[in-house]
Amino acid sequence: MGRLIGGEPSLLRRINSAVVLHALRAADRATLTEVTRVTGLSRPTVEGVVEDLIGAGLVVEEAADVTVVRRQGRPARRFRFRAEAGYLLGVDVGAHRVSAVVADLDGRVLGAQGKDVAEGAPAEERLERLRTAVAELLRRAGVPRSALRAVGVGTPGIVEADGTVRLCSALPGWTGLRLGERLSRSFRCPVLVENDANAAAVGEHWKGAAVDSDDVVLVLAGLSPGAGSLIGGRLHRGYGGAAGEIGSWHLLGREVTPEALLSTTDVPLPPLDDRAVTAVFSRAVDGDPGARAAVDRFFRRLVHDVSALVLALDPELVVIGGSTEGLGALLDPLRDELARYCLRPPKVALSTLGEAAVATGALRLALDHVEEQLFAVEGTVTGRRGSGR
Amino acid sequence: MGRLIGGEPSLLRRINSAVVLHALRAADRATLTEVTRVTGLSRPTVEGVVEDLIGAGLVVEEAADVTVVRRQGRPARRFRFRAEAGYLLGVDVGAHRVSAVVADLDGRVLGAQGKDVAEGAPAEERLERLRTAVAELLRRAGVPRSALRAVGVGTPGIVEADGTVRLCSALPGWTGLRLGERLSRSFRCPVLVENDANAAAVGEHWKGAAVDSDDVVLVLAGLSPGAGSLIGGRLHRGYGGAAGEIGSWHLLGREVTPEALLSTTDVPLPPLDDRAVTAVFSRAVDGDPGARAAVDRFFRRLVHDVSALVLALDPELVVIGGSTEGLGALLDPLRDELARYCLRPPKVALSTLGEAAVATGALRLALDHVEEQLFAVEGTVTGRRGSGR
Repeated sequence: MGRLIGGEPSLLRRINSAVVLHALRAADRATLTEVTRVTGLSRPTVEGVVEDLIGAGLVVEEAADVTVVRRQGRPARRFRFRAEAGYLLGVDVGAHRVSAVVADLDGRVLGAQGKDVAEGAPAEERLERLRTAVAELLRRAGVPRSALRAVGVGTPGIVEADGTVRLCSALPGWTGLRLGERLSRSFRCPVLVENDANAAAVGEHWKGAAVDSDDVVLVLAGLSPGAGSLIGGRLHRGYGGAAGEIGSWHLLGREVTPEALLSTTDVPLPPLDDRAVTAVFSRAVDGDPGARAAVDRFFRRLVHDVSALVLALDPELVVIGGSTEGLGALLDPLRDELARYCLRPPKVALSTLGEAAVATGALRLALDHVEEQLFAVEGTVTGRRGSGR
Repeated sequence: MGRLIGGEPSLLRRINSAVVLHALRAADRATLTEVTRVTGLSRPTVEGVVEDLIGAGLVVEEAADVTVVRRQGRPARRFRFRAEAGYLLGVDVGAHRVSAVVADLDGRVLGAQGKDVAEGAPAEERLERLRTAVAELLRRAGVPRSALRAVGVGTPGIVEADGTVRLCSALPGWTGLRLGERLSRSFRCPVLVENDANAAAVGEHWKGAAVDSDDVVLVLAGLSPGAGSLIGGRLHRGYGGAAGEIGSWHLLGREVTPEALLSTTDVPLPPLDDRAVTAVFSRAVDGDPGARAAVDRFFRRLVHDVSALVLALDPELVVIGGSTEGLGALLDPLRDELARYCLRPPKVALSTLGEAAVATGALRLALDHVEEQLFAVEGTVTGRRGSGR
């Protein structure tokens, strides 16, 4: 409390540095006079901070534009944020595919790479495929591994704060895997592991169907649906990182499994086999009446689950994602159901990032981490109270 | 961005004032030297701010303690926050009863008053009963109406930000009622209206079963269960104020209503009649097998709903509240169910505030409002980014 006022020179320097860097990045490129005006700092302070930032490799002076003739004197020096001062990876560990994207410090994507992997592949094989994809990606994009500042990873399952996968029914050998630590061996920067639906929600909010909303529920629809939520623009992870793990909702009422709902015979589909789902969907599209009825049952369940989630969370927007094809057909029944039970039904949209949502969100989480280090100053001025004691 | 640095004298004064007031309140009573030390402010600044606060009636100098003999000079002057500088009301509008509590600026409760009201009473009669209860309470507590700084109100239904009840099936004439505006006529201070389950969650977090947890789901169990959630200590209202309105969950699956579940005949109980519920509960306690089976069905539904909410939100603690008697019997089945489906099942507790939870939470919301005015300074230093663009 009162730290800012009590005066703490190093903190003040950090604040000034963050403010100047923020201004330069927002302005694309700017003169010292412009930075002084925007930040409210004194000219000598700005000069000192910019010099430090140049020394740290985060800011560079742009070559003067010789085509502009000024009335008098030299042209003013212009500075810009060096987005190429570091790079970020966003990684998606999926059941059938592992993939990664690389971007600079402005979040501009420079390349992407994916590798198929067998659904039943053991953990080591999946990790190896991932390492191969990342190595190829970095080589092709011309990004040295040492220039990476942070790596974000999206994975199915409940993820601990330290990057351990606490529970994951979708990937063999994944429960208990210390994923963050394992991947850290390949990088010298922080590795941030996040649940895939959470990462997808962040991705859609950054560049996809949810750019205009801060209160979003994203549902990765499938045999074991999972949800990620943003509340006021912030990820809601839950107390134990398990928020949105609604895959076992049907078990509460001891109802039939999604695999049984989707089966066209007396035998349920193989557990968690999304390819089997796609096969039934294809047959339904081809007009097979049994498959159509199965898809119908499956959709009713999904509509029910998403509606229940909406009543619990009251978001502004619901985004339907996931790798199952044909999910677009879910939108109208979902809208109808929501209109029936919600006073102010949320908007409903299909993911626009599709299969890229998880990696994109993981990339954003890596960028958040770096921005927090570069631009943010922790702590408000007074101990502001919420609804607490 | 950078406002604090650019310098804005009035803001700096506000910050200093908030910091000093905060320190005095936390310290109970303190000398200027102590305030200087705790806040990091200069002695002249502290002297100036304390003088201003005395002028505003928020701080008072304590009479010197003559029993303490100091070696040299006069005893140091001691100052304290004037908790009696203003008062707060917490109001609970229930189906069978309206009630209110009054407290000082430290949140110390000075009195409470309630009035029974018929379940079917029209809105005007309910409001009149409430006004009577408040008038009696203020008179008995010796608090002049003009000394009230804020009034918090908990009510069933979905509440708009402006205090209008958007939808309420529990109270006749309540849907569409501009409750905030109507009550504002009786007070010259802000009136803050909140959903009753939300208020109860805040109340239990402040003084009840949830004091040790910032991630709480409170369920007002009953025929139309409602939930209030705190996430990271903050109330989660939802985008449209409808979060936790799970009363229509059973309609999604087109299942039977709670009134039918609880009936011991072919005819469902009267809609939303909590007294009828209590009657069935009493008969079950007396050993009536039909009533026991009905209560069992009803509990199974509640356990199902609460478990689904837990999977969606992943709280640290679930608190079961509501005016229905005998809810304690719900706890063990709920714990069993949660243990079955949650990786890290939340703790489960019964409300300790009971019928006082809503009014207590409404009081806390009024206190929050006043504290925000007195102690908080808006705005962080840099435009800190969440997971957004």
